[in-house]
Amino acid sequence: MQILLIALDGLGDRPVSRGKTPLQLAKKPNMDRLAKGGISGISYPIGPGIVPGSDTGYLSLFGYDPYHFYVGRGILEALGSGAKVHEGDIAFRANFSTVDGKMNIIDRRAGRIDGKDADELAKSISKIIVKDRRGKDITFQFEHVHGHRCVLLIRGQDLSPMVSDTDMHVVGQVAWAKAINPSDDAKRTADALNEWLKKANAILKSHSTNKRRKERGLPEANFIITRGASMLTKGVPYKGASYSGIYGEAVSITPFKEKYKMDATCVASGFLYKGVARYIGMDVMSIDRKVGALHADLDEKVKAALSELKKGTDFVFLHFKGTDVAGHDGDWKAKVKFIEKADKAIAPFLKLKDTIIVVTSDHSTPCALKAHSADPVPILIHGPAGMIRPDHIAKFDEVSASHGGLDTLRHADVMPILLGLLGKAKMFGT
Amino acid sequence: MQILLIALDGLGDRPVSRGKTPLQLAKKPNMDRLAKGGISGISYPIGPGIVPGSDTGYLSLFGYDPYHFYVGRGILEALGSGAKVHEGDIAFRANFSTVDGKMNIIDRRAGRIDGKDADELAKSISKIIVKDRRGKDITFQFEHVHGHRCVLLIRGQDLSPMVSDTDMHVVGQVAWAKAINPSDDAKRTADALNEWLKKANAILKSHSTNKRRKERGLPEANFIITRGASMLTKGVPYKGASYSGIYGEAVSITPFKEKYKMDATCVASGFLYKGVARYIGMDVMSIDRKVGALHADLDEKVKAALSELKKGTDFVFLHFKGTDVAGHDGDWKAKVKFIEKADKAIAPFLKLKDTIIVVTSDHSTPCALKAHSADPVPILIHGPAGMIRPDHIAKFDEVSASHGGLDTLRHADVMPILLGLLGKAKMFGT
Repeated sequence: MQILLIALDGLGDRPVSRGKTPLQLAKKPNMDRLAKGGISGISYPIGPGIVPGSDTGYLSLFGYDPYHFYVGRGILEALGSGAKVHEGDIAFRANFSTVDGKMNIIDRRAGRIDGKDADELAKSISKIIVKDRRGKDITFQFEHVHGHRCVLLIRGQDLSPMVSDTDMHVVGQVAWAKAINPSDDAKRTADALNEWLKKANAILKSHSTNKRRKERGLPEANFIITRGASMLTKGVPYKGASYSGIYGEAVSITPFKEKYKMDATCVASGFLYKGVARYIGMDVMSIDRKVGALHADLDEKVKAALSELKKGTDFVFLHFKGTDVAGHDGDWKAKVKFIEKADKAIAPFLKLKDTIIVVTSDHSTPCALKAHSADPVPILIHGPAGMIRPDHIAKFDEVSASHGGLDTLRHADVMPILLGLLGKAKMFGT
Repeated sequence: MQILLIALDGLGDRPVSRGKTPLQLAKKPNMDRLAKGGISGISYPIGPGIVPGSDTGYLSLFGYDPYHFYVGRGILEALGSGAKVHEGDIAFRANFSTVDGKMNIIDRRAGRIDGKDADELAKSISKIIVKDRRGKDITFQFEHVHGHRCVLLIRGQDLSPMVSDTDMHVVGQVAWAKAINPSDDAKRTADALNEWLKKANAILKSHSTNKRRKERGLPEANFIITRGASMLTKGVPYKGASYSGIYGEAVSITPFKEKYKMDATCVASGFLYKGVARYIGMDVMSIDRKVGALHADLDEKVKAALSELKKGTDFVFLHFKGTDVAGHDGDWKAKVKFIEKADKAIAPFLKLKDTIIVVTSDHSTPCALKAHSADPVPILIHGPAGMIRPDHIAKFDEVSASHGGLDTLRHADVMPILLGLLGKAKMFGT
């Protein structure tokens, strides 16, 4: 028996037209068939009134309480990028931005730079060594993620994640990094980061790509702004037995394979999802990042998931991103369309035997809010005849699912329920 | 107002035929009438992904968190057998087994010995005193439970439950008991147990019943194997104010009558169920053990429960075993049949006034698994008009109940809900 967990990122929504949610409006015969043969419910990713991030939503779904195991998005994106993250490394989320001659930030996203321009510029500052006050080397690794988004990983002796954001989420004078606790480590880390920001600025502003951008009337990506410093402590890169928490609080993670006695593979394109998967010890397939876009062809991912299942992998996590993108864009028609595309794409899975199929999400991204919300998400669990108790629900959407046989649950319940169905749950008593 | 709680052991199941569970397939007009007039739900006995034992399932149902109060099956079966269990006593589950001349176990169940043979042999070793290394007496009490199953209770000074199982669940060379911690108490207890095992073997192998068995070509029940040592500490026999936990961890139990301000009587035939009831301070009716069998007449139990209710007992726990037996046998037709028989048997209860009737179970025993599972169990609560809010559910089964007004709950919620209906729940605030 294998498990295929299909997550449509940011799937949950609120009524957008004629009193219906995008899921209710979409034609999705395959998901409805799975709902009809399976058991449905509505799940709070973390709990009522908690707005999940994608990272905390998936951690919760895979049975890792985010209040214990959340390590910060910087580290997760760094892991997702494929960077080797070591104990004591500090990671930041970073943006390409535009400063004027007086070091005023005039565009926090450098005109939403992307593609070749971003890749070229990122390459020019991909590895810079800065000496700290004591003369020790600090290595700054920089990687383009997507759009204006990047990840910065720094490595050295006695670093501290207690440094302030240089991205203040508003335009205006550059906010240089400061220590946010009185330790010398924090002071030294902030100073080194500021020195790197200046070095990067010097390289970027004279880069030919930026000159070309200027000629084309595009904002130059001549400055980096950083946020969300997080540190991996007691960490073993990728698949080791113990990772650790934010701000130096050590946390020991039992890897997925050990915790559930199942092989697991993540089929996703975004760095964050891959990062969460690596963080909890799943294998990660190499999938082109561009497959994550709203208008992308989903068949490549579906094929990848099918091949993983064919190989006998116990647990395959298949991630579709478009629903979340449409939600953030506030474009419900695009969301409906993406759901319909995803529904067509998953058709081959309906022929699988000996496979439990789960369809759910990490959080709601209502189009009306253009942001994540605390609204619970629908979930369905479909399995071979005789394993699941099919309920009376024949449609997959937020409202139908809330009347289903699983009633209301939390993502923390999902893995235990699946283990129970598989016969892998532990007996307590006799 | 009185409460009658009817538990069909191992009732929950998965679809077995035409996509339906045994409960869905069974004709059970009385249970359906109770569901129609009552409120239904689906309940996790302990929690999602936890496979309950019968002992932990019922503890949970009666509001005793098994993670705090589970004392081990040995002690519970000993209590159920009627043995007086004292503080510091150690109990084991035990099997009649068969050894060859070289002390190889060749049959872990002595040909599933039962009845008169088992009773006679058990009597021959019912009370043996062994001297420990320090010259102190250790009393070994042995009692036949049912089939090849027995319970061994030992009493002495400074005993320890930290001794290994001598039942390794496989045939082969006898695995003598060993201390599983370095204490002298554990060593002394293991040594004394081994001495008793040899004494019992000497008595059993020359017993006339075994000679007769040999002549009839049946395996001799000439050896005892033990497992699951558990200790009652700080215990007061049966109904006292404080019992205690496994492995000497002291736990203080508030007896049912004190906790809920209700008299309570258990009507069950199996030692384990009686033992759980005694452990939490319920009264236990004397019911012939044979009434527990799959093909037994259930009317005797129903009459007993009715007479208890007539006497004015506040809470009556009525236990039917057959559903679990059929589940373990993997015989769904027998399960359907037993449900139908139980349904007929409970007809007299439908005439009761001023009585809340609960129908539920301790865990699922799906026929396809022939074992307990983590699947939740249906529950219905029926009461006098005006007390319960009847929902839209008119059938009693796993799927219908999951759509009921109680939605999904846990067994830990059941007693608080019943107290609330009775008006015995405490007000918090003003």
